[in-house]
Amino acid sequence: MPLHYPNGNLYHNDAKARPKKQMARSQTRFDNRGMSLEEEINESNQFYRAHDIAVIYKKPLPLQIVKVDYPKRSAAVIKEAYFRQPSTTDYNGVYRGYYLDFEAKETKNKASFPLKNFHQHQIEHMRHCLRQAGICFVIMRFVSLNRLFVYPASPLIAYWDQQNTGGRKSIPLTDIETNGFEVHYALKPRIPYLTAIDQFIATLTIEKGDHHGQ
Amino acid sequence: MPLHYPNGNLYHNDAKARPKKQMARSQTRFDNRGMSLEEEINESNQFYRAHDIAVIYKKPLPLQIVKVDYPKRSAAVIKEAYFRQPSTTDYNGVYRGYYLDFEAKETKNKASFPLKNFHQHQIEHMRHCLRQAGICFVIMRFVSLNRLFVYPASPLIAYWDQQNTGGRKSIPLTDIETNGFEVHYALKPRIPYLTAIDQFIATLTIEKGDHHGQ
Repeated sequence: MPLHYPNGNLYHNDAKARPKKQMARSQTRFDNRGMSLEEEINESNQFYRAHDIAVIYKKPLPLQIVKVDYPKRSAAVIKEAYFRQPSTTDYNGVYRGYYLDFEAKETKNKASFPLKNFHQHQIEHMRHCLRQAGICFVIMRFVSLNRLFVYPASPLIAYWDQQNTGGRKSIPLTDIETNGFEVHYALKPRIPYLTAIDQFIATLTIEKGDHHGQ
Repeated sequence: MPLHYPNGNLYHNDAKARPKKQMARSQTRFDNRGMSLEEEINESNQFYRAHDIAVIYKKPLPLQIVKVDYPKRSAAVIKEAYFRQPSTTDYNGVYRGYYLDFEAKETKNKASFPLKNFHQHQIEHMRHCLRQAGICFVIMRFVSLNRLFVYPASPLIAYWDQQNTGGRKSIPLTDIETNGFEVHYALKPRIPYLTAIDQFIATLTIEKGDHHGQ
């Protein structure tokens, strides 16, 4: 049962649709038990919340509700609703006083990350959050390489803007290795991306001092 | 068509259900055109976003999707879904590097704000966000008094915890006047609550210095 957004993009909700590839990958990954990237991040966020390390959630999908039945003595049943294009990124929350805002994306490419994985509204949202001194990034997975990165929004936006003036349509892995922060799979949590965020924040502090002083 | 959460609480989505009261209030309020508190806050957030002052959104309602039809050449139609109890507060976002997290609530009472307006999960969420140095609060409206306040989460949580050991079941207006920050209706934006947040943050800075230093 494939779901699509109104713009035709596929909606991924769980990993059930692709068990075979997950099985193949699990040989080189650390106990992933066929989870999707989204599930792994949700589980990591749950771990971070349970241990009072950070409060980060995936936002619910925005829906346009058209028709609701309200049977007596029962919960309301939505009988007609449509998926709406989200106007923001998928995840946000708070960590050590910092506002975190990010997307999770993956590619099968081996040498670069295609910009077509992103939407204009996500880029604009990150641009606005950056102006408010939010910590904005993408958790990128290179499926074939089995490598994960936290890649900051600033270079992503720079690549995005350049593609309209003849720039390349993807971010080279070498740039992601340079400007990003690699994350290694672990047990608790599965994707310990806040370690990479600590490194990321450290570079910001050096550059900007107190980011509240902007 | 009244909607309820699974726990039986009423779900308010728009102001249409109560036009009469809104009309009556509009005589003493500033051009409110019969909007609900939620709509007024959404509009204010839109203003703040459009003017690059803050990036704050109301979170979509979490739904449990059970059945989806996917007609050829058309958008997916959700045919069966249920409202779920949200595990967080309604609004969050970023403002001047600060993580903001809040609820919007109103009462018809004149002398105090009943604690029954809040749910355990909202209190717990605010407790966790506070530990991450988030700026957590409630936008409270006293409908009959036509007064609005930003009331910080810390005193709210203190009242909440006390009620289980014989404490009062509501927060006195006098306390809200003392510990809260009054907000006056305006035109752009309608509810300029970030002015109150500036005052709120100023008290935090005095108390804690750099809130990132925790």
